[in-house]
Amino acid sequence: MSHEKYAQVIQALHECMEACNHCYSACLQESDLEQMIECVRLDRECADICSNFEQALTLDTQFVNEYAQLCASVCRACGDECAKHDHDHCQQCAEACRKCANECEKLIEYA
Amino acid sequence: MSHEKYAQVIQALHECMEACNHCYSACLQESDLEQMIECVRLDRECADICSNFEQALTLDTQFVNEYAQLCASVCRACGDECAKHDHDHCQQCAEACRKCANECEKLIEYA
Amino acid sequence: MSHEKYAQVIQALHECMEACNHCYSACLQESDLEQMIECVRLDRECADICSNFEQALTLDTQFVNEYAQLCASVCRACGDECAKHDHDHCQQCAEACRKCANECEKLIEYA
Amino acid sequence: MSHEKYAQVIQALHECMEACNHCYSACLQESDLEQMIECVRLDRECADICSNFEQALTLDTQFVNEYAQLCASVCRACGDECAKHDHDHCQQCAEACRKCANECEKLIEYA
Repeated sequence: MSHEKYAQVIQALHECMEACNHCYSACLQESDLEQMIECVRLDRECADICSNFEQALTLDTQFVNEYAQLCASVCRACGDECAKHDHDHCQQCAEACRKCANECEKLIEYA
Repeated sequence: MSHEKYAQVIQALHECMEACNHCYSACLQESDLEQMIECVRLDRECADICSNFEQALTLDTQFVNEYAQLCASVCRACGDECAKHDHDHCQQCAEACRKCANECEKLIEYA
Repeated sequence: MSHEKYAQVIQALHECMEACNHCYSACLQESDLEQMIECVRLDRECADICSNFEQALTLDTQFVNEYAQLCASVCRACGDECAKHDHDHCQQCAEACRKCANECEKLIEYA
Repeated sequence: MSHEKYAQVIQALHECMEACNHCYSACLQESDLEQMIECVRLDRECADICSNFEQALTLDTQFVNEYAQLCASVCRACGDECAKHDHDHCQQCAEACRKCANECEKLIEYA
């Protein structure tokens, strides 16, 4: 069962998607919005790929390695950007992105 | 925070997406595949709309009512179809779909 | 063939998705970004639902009416917001959204 | 403008998504459905990644290379599978997948 085999990464993808979308909405309401543009852009991209990869994993995709490489890259970039900002939502998102990037990278190693 | 306000329905959407994708993959491996075509079709549609609605809710969409009506209709149809089949994955999916349809319908009532 | 029957609305959905994503990226680079927040938010939501509805139509979904109601609402809201702004990308997006909302509303009438 | 720079690949992605979803629906109605299972599975995965990559390109994603590698792999696999079957929808889908894989591979070369 793919959804059991991949339970840990699916959970990380789900939490990362939620953290990115929360950070996205919160960034758009910040007074220093001009500083948050890259964060907004990456939050959206990261939420999308996490959501897509989650579906692919629950479908037992043959393309785990390629998905994991894409998703790890986006999560890593989003986590690095979020980590630059002191807002709680950015710090929480940075943590979720890094955890998710780590899970994706484990899939690359063992694919 | 939209992701806290909607935590229960987000969880139901997530579990429904997983159950639908698992049922989809499992149906395609059943010996009575000819009987499972409508189940396969609805599983895919249901997983997609659950995944999309999940993202929209975590973004604090203004269109909760319209999304909930669409998602409730698809979940209801998918749950009814799955309930006709004795396979464990179909019965589990029927349960997840009905739970999710119920959560969506609560959003319609209170939107 | 669903993709032939719905060719006109699929084209409108596709063009609306492209216009919304272009407007989204361009808004995030505008000097009056503070004024464009609602435009950014709606551009993303509109691109997502157009993309999802496009897929559902090419799959010959049974849920045309519910999808069309959701998509028409989002396109109408996004078009109205974009129309408030003088940027070329906003005016072009407003036009694409309105055309798409009209196509969706025709589906509701005839569903 | 990303949507102009990438116009050719966006068109190929769009046509591939449509061809895959049409092939998917048609396969599920074929009398030799047992032979079409892998085609059904890959059609869905291919339509999804084409749709997602299309959105990412219109957003001017930084992750063109990773997306293109994933999408090329899925399109190549789906095209190879479809090419095995004589149904018109499979042959047309094989052609759309191969054209799309070629466009994606061009992006990898020049990314």
